[in-house]
Amino acid sequence: MRRAEAYIAVDWGTTNRRAWRIAPGGAVEDEMEDGKGILSVPSGGFPAAVAEIRGRLGDLPMLMGGMIGSNRGWIEAPYVRCPAGLPELAAGLQWAEPQRTAIVPGVAFDEGDAADVMRGEEVQILGAFAEGWISPEATICHPGTHNKWAKLEDGRIAAFRTVMTGELFNLLKGNSILADLLGGEVGTSGAFEAGVRHGLDQDDLTAELFSVRARTLLGKARREDGASYVSGLLIGSDLRVGLRTAGPGEIVVMARPDLTELFSAALAIAGRETRSVDGEQAFLAGIRHLAELIR
Amino acid sequence: MRRAEAYIAVDWGTTNRRAWRIAPGGAVEDEMEDGKGILSVPSGGFPAAVAEIRGRLGDLPMLMGGMIGSNRGWIEAPYVRCPAGLPELAAGLQWAEPQRTAIVPGVAFDEGDAADVMRGEEVQILGAFAEGWISPEATICHPGTHNKWAKLEDGRIAAFRTVMTGELFNLLKGNSILADLLGGEVGTSGAFEAGVRHGLDQDDLTAELFSVRARTLLGKARREDGASYVSGLLIGSDLRVGLRTAGPGEIVVMARPDLTELFSAALAIAGRETRSVDGEQAFLAGIRHLAELIR
Repeated sequence: MRRAEAYIAVDWGTTNRRAWRIAPGGAVEDEMEDGKGILSVPSGGFPAAVAEIRGRLGDLPMLMGGMIGSNRGWIEAPYVRCPAGLPELAAGLQWAEPQRTAIVPGVAFDEGDAADVMRGEEVQILGAFAEGWISPEATICHPGTHNKWAKLEDGRIAAFRTVMTGELFNLLKGNSILADLLGGEVGTSGAFEAGVRHGLDQDDLTAELFSVRARTLLGKARREDGASYVSGLLIGSDLRVGLRTAGPGEIVVMARPDLTELFSAALAIAGRETRSVDGEQAFLAGIRHLAELIR
Repeated sequence: MRRAEAYIAVDWGTTNRRAWRIAPGGAVEDEMEDGKGILSVPSGGFPAAVAEIRGRLGDLPMLMGGMIGSNRGWIEAPYVRCPAGLPELAAGLQWAEPQRTAIVPGVAFDEGDAADVMRGEEVQILGAFAEGWISPEATICHPGTHNKWAKLEDGRIAAFRTVMTGELFNLLKGNSILADLLGGEVGTSGAFEAGVRHGLDQDDLTAELFSVRARTLLGKARREDGASYVSGLLIGSDLRVGLRTAGPGEIVVMARPDLTELFSAALAIAGRETRSVDGEQAFLAGIRHLAELIR
């Protein structure tokens, strides 16, 4: 990748993908988004799926992050171990085409019995740090399908832990006996706050979930509060685990704006200060800094 | 229902149903089982579905327990409140046809903020007590799709709490990112024991679930241990909640034999003595004693 050349940044996840054309100076010139996540690409279909992006945004070099580098993606990019900063990610790039198309490695935490992995969030977290948006010792809460609690040390990801909050909510909403209570909008209303407080204070999540249904059947809770209460309950339980290892001071919440709002509201209920960082902007920052490192 | 007449006992659940023809003396003469749970019966289809059972087992009086009495079943049989014994269930029978076809009510626990409901387990629990298999002050662990922890006082169900353990395992196995780790057999092996111990000792279930995947990806855990570990983890978490309100002494484990074995093994790891009761036999005992009460 040459310094004077535009390139394409791709955030390729499990169920969708986004791509941006970045001008040599770093400005976004064009972008696309579609539902072609890695699980929808047939075996052997990745070269065509990549060509499709170039067809839309230009025949340019490409830097890709996310699940595209997993064992279900195009080419597996082995995990970089913690502590991991942008230089470690740059050194671990998996080149699909020399100097032209690269996949960013994920990060693994592996210490004694503890193990964890991330793919995609590392670009955002380290991008936000490189941009000066968060401190070199920040504690980050990164909600999504899987929430990542990450700790920076000296600007590198030193440790992290995943909580399956988003996926559990989706499973309950899609296929469980609670499904008909979870169809409504999730807001940061009184029901959400009650759920967060229960999750923070008590460790009986798998029982409390059923109590939501029972209270509704017995007329002690309103059906329309179900989604907000259960969302709050899951997020409160998540915070109870995540805050245990978080240092003092503000928590950086980094995600899509709707998730950032929910988790920031829950952290405020837990008495913690937060700083919000937009996940998309952080991803673009991370890719820009990686591009600088390899030019 | 006349004393000298045979009758049909039906355990009609969400996804399947079982029925038995009971001779006047109490012996099982014939039985059937099929997948016609209440969710598979179309609106207005219950009279035909009931007639089908009589076509198979005889044109006889019927006593039905389980979800057939729920708001998605045939005729709603309002919950009886705790404390509930067999006389309270008999008084709450919902007669679909006078003196001929009755639905057993479920039981509700409703105290302050706590609320819970059961339909079907009450017949088994109170049947086991009426038969003299368990003490009038027993603590019962009744695993299934939803595990019910129930406390008898003076032979009546005084309080209970539901934990969604079985349903969560099924959701994770069917649709989650852990699905490909959970296809194997669940045994009470070393992995099961490790999962139970984690669940008993630590309250980070929604994080530990993801760690199972990460440890497997990083080669620290064996893929074939996934199902047993996760089953143990969920059951251990369940026990951590359930044992908190259980009295001292033995725990009665009442369910299908395979679930009874798993939960008894987990309770042994938790250092508790158990007594196993076969759920089917307990159901038949409960229906027999109810039939006596209304003759």
